[in-house]
This record gives sequence, structure tokens and C-alpha cells, in this order.
Amino acid sequence: MDNISNRLEGFTILFGVAEIFGALAVILVTVWLGYYHNGFAWRSAPAVEFNWHPVLMTIGMVFLYGNSIMVYRAFPNHSKRSLKLTHAIIHAVAFLLAIIALQAVFDSHNLAPTKIPNLYSLHSWIGLSAIILFACQLLAGLVTFLYPGLKQTFRAAYMPVHVYFGILGFVCAVASSIMGILEKSIFRKEYSSFDSETWLANFLGVVLLIFGSLVVYLVSESRYKRQPRPEDEILLTGNLE
Amino acid sequence: MDNISNRLEGFTILFGVAEIFGALAVILVTVWLGYYHNGFAWRSAPAVEFNWHPVLMTIGMVFLYGNSIMVYRAFPNHSKRSLKLTHAIIHAVAFLLAIIALQAVFDSHNLAPTKIPNLYSLHSWIGLSAIILFACQLLAGLVTFLYPGLKQTFRAAYMPVHVYFGILGFVCAVASSIMGILEKSIFRKEYSSFDSETWLANFLGVVLLIFGSLVVYLVSESRYKRQPRPEDEILLTGNLE
Repeated sequence: MDNISNRLEGFTILFGVAEIFGALAVILVTVWLGYYHNGFAWRSAPAVEFNWHPVLMTIGMVFLYGNSIMVYRAFPNHSKRSLKLTHAIIHAVAFLLAIIALQAVFDSHNLAPTKIPNLYSLHSWIGLSAIILFACQLLAGLVTFLYPGLKQTFRAAYMPVHVYFGILGFVCAVASSIMGILEKSIFRKEYSSFDSETWLANFLGVVLLIFGSLVVYLVSESRYKRQPRPEDEILLTGNLE
Repeated sequence: MDNISNRLEGFTILFGVAEIFGALAVILVTVWLGYYHNGFAWRSAPAVEFNWHPVLMTIGMVFLYGNSIMVYRAFPNHSKRSLKLTHAIIHAVAFLLAIIALQAVFDSHNLAPTKIPNLYSLHSWIGLSAIILFACQLLAGLVTFLYPGLKQTFRAAYMPVHVYFGILGFVCAVASSIMGILEKSIFRKEYSSFDSETWLANFLGVVLLIFGSLVVYLVSESRYKRQPRPEDEILLTGNLE
């Protein structure tokens, strides 16, 4: 028992701090677009429809994505099967939100009075790469780890690849979010005047960076790794019916 | 022997690919500023002096920083003392280049015909944070690992902190570079026209991202970790005279 508490030292506090920063990011991005950029609409007002893009990306590709990859470490006593299902379901919701968020930005470009070109900025390149990587991982993860009866050796071989590209995709999603904040801010002439929106937007960027750093630490620190439980093997090899 | 080659499988190829992408980033950033933005000058032409900023940051805070943190894994058969000295020297050079790069951007703002505000953008916030973190790590690293006679227990306790914040600082430096490319690009009206500079700048961002991803993989994959050598202990506890 002492050994376990030693091994998990600091986890609960860091996890709690991460959750606070994650929630703060969601609140700040909503206030930013809601208060400073005229709230939310759908196709009736394409310029305002855009506002869903940062909000849904922050909720899906940052907050939910981060929580989904922490799930194995946050609940070490739950069965592997329930953790895998939770991981897959949160990821699926995150992906759905990302698709709606993409639709919002494409609409805001294509339905604008003067059409705006799509996918020219480095933010869009890296953001779209993160989403494509995320989709591939979601699909490969479902087939490899949830589809019953796949060979254990194949699962074990794909695992480190899944973990590395999962974290890389998360880092790209956070980086892309911060780039998006910068891009939207630079479009504003008043950005360099240090008005209240400058502080809010930059503070949001810093909060996202701290959330991302904490999540990556918590999922990569080997001390916090979930220890195998006796029933794991049965659940891994058994099917889901 | 078989065990070692198994453990290090893929290292040489990935390390070589990382070096190619790192060198490519330095070439591309130099071409970008040199060819598309009127080359290089110092205070006689502050707008052109700016061009040193991205070039020296890419060389120092990305290429040299990345190489410096890979040095222990790239040369596993060298003595720990020579590796530590190499690591410290490359870091010191990188820091020097970063300081000159900061001077270049501050000059380009302060000496412009119409003064430009400093440190308002999220790029500058994250970039400066990365450099401050880097400076703290350099100082703490020198005191902890090169100053002779410090207690081994203290060194061992600081090591994981040094490694985590070292990698975090590198990721922030790469992210900040990519944000800087985006920022400079967004200032150009032609960015959305997909002209040759758009492609070059975005391609540079992607190259930096790939370099960063490879470096982080190579320094964090436990298989590639340098194995302790018999003389390490003597060198660690002995002094440097």
C-alpha cells in the first residue's frame, strides 16, 4: 500500500490542477467568442457561425481529448474493458465535435459575402493534420483494441505506436489551438494595444499550454502508469458480448 | 551484442532523418527571410534587422537545442563528462543566439519609424517563456551537474525535473517558432493567395513540426536511453579539474 501511495505521489493534485486549467480554457474560449465576438449562430450568420469553431475545438480536441488519454491513469481500479470503452466513447464525441467545428469554419469562409479561401494558413495545415491523425488513431484503436479476437501480439505491437501518435496528435491539437488564437488576434488591429481582449486571448493561450503540459506529463510519467490487474488478460482476450 | 542492436533498432535512421529535417528548417528559414524579405542587416535597417530573429531562433532554440538534448543518445559510447560538457556548450551557444535574436526583434520594433509595441502577441509570450525556462535550466544544470562536489542524491532528484522541463522548453520553442511563422505570414495580405511564399512558410512550419516530433521521440523512447558505463560514477562524483 505504501508502495502504491509512493508511486502515485502527486497524481491527484496534478490531475486536479489539470482539470481546473482545462475547464478554465473552455470557459475562457466561450467568453472570448460569446462576449467579444457576438455570440453564436449557425448558417444564418456565417461570421458568427465561425465562433463555434474555437469553442468546439477547445472542448473536443483539447479538453475531451486530454481527458480521454488520462482515463487509464485517473481510474486505475476500473476494469480495462470499461476504461477502453470510456476512452473510445470520449474520443468519438471529441471527433464529432471536431467535425462540427470544421463545418463551422468552412461555412464561415464559403458563405461570407466575399468568399474567403480555405486551408491556406499554417494553423489550418497543422490543425487538419491533427484531426486526420486523430481519425486514423480512432479507427485503428477500435479495430485493434476493441474488435474481439485480434491476436495479442498484434495488439502489443501497435500499443506503443498508438500511445506515441496519440500524444503527438494531442500536442498538435493544443499547438494548433494556440495558433488559432494568435491568428484570430492578429486579424484585429487593436491586438497590439493591450486592450482587455488581448489579455483574455493571450491568457487563454497560456492556460491551454499549461493544460497540455500537465496532461502530457500525467500520461507519460511511468510512475503513474496503470498496473495490470489479474482480470485484464481475460478481458483482453475475451470478446465484448 | 544482439541485445544492444535490438534495443537501438531504428535509432540511426530516425536520428539521420531528424538531422535532415533540422538542417532543412535552417535552410528554409534563411531562404525565406533572405530571398523574400530583403536579406540581413543590423541597426542601419531595423526592418531588415528583424530577419535575424527567425533565423537565429531556428538555429539556436530549435536546431541546436534539439541536437543538444539528443547528444546523450547519439553518442552512447562517449564518457558522461564529455557528453555533459558538449550538452552545456551547445546550450550556451543556443542561448547566445537567442539573446541576439531577441535584440534583433526589439530593435526592429523600437527603431521603426513608427514604434511598434513589444511583447503583445501570444507568440512573444510563449517564446519568451521558453527562453526564460531555458535560461533557468541552463543555470540549474550547470550548478547541479557540472559544479563539482554536489551531492549525488540531489543530482538524482533534480534529473527528472531537468529532463521534463528540458523537453517542455524544446516543445515550447518549436511551437513558438511555428507561431512566429504564422504571425509573420498573417501580416502579409497575399498569404491567402497561395503564392510561393505561402507554400515556403507553411512548408517550413511542417518541417519544424516533424523535426520537433522526431527529437522528442528519440529523447523520450526508453529503449534508446544511454546505458550507464562503469566509469560514469567516478566521473560524476569526481571534479572537473
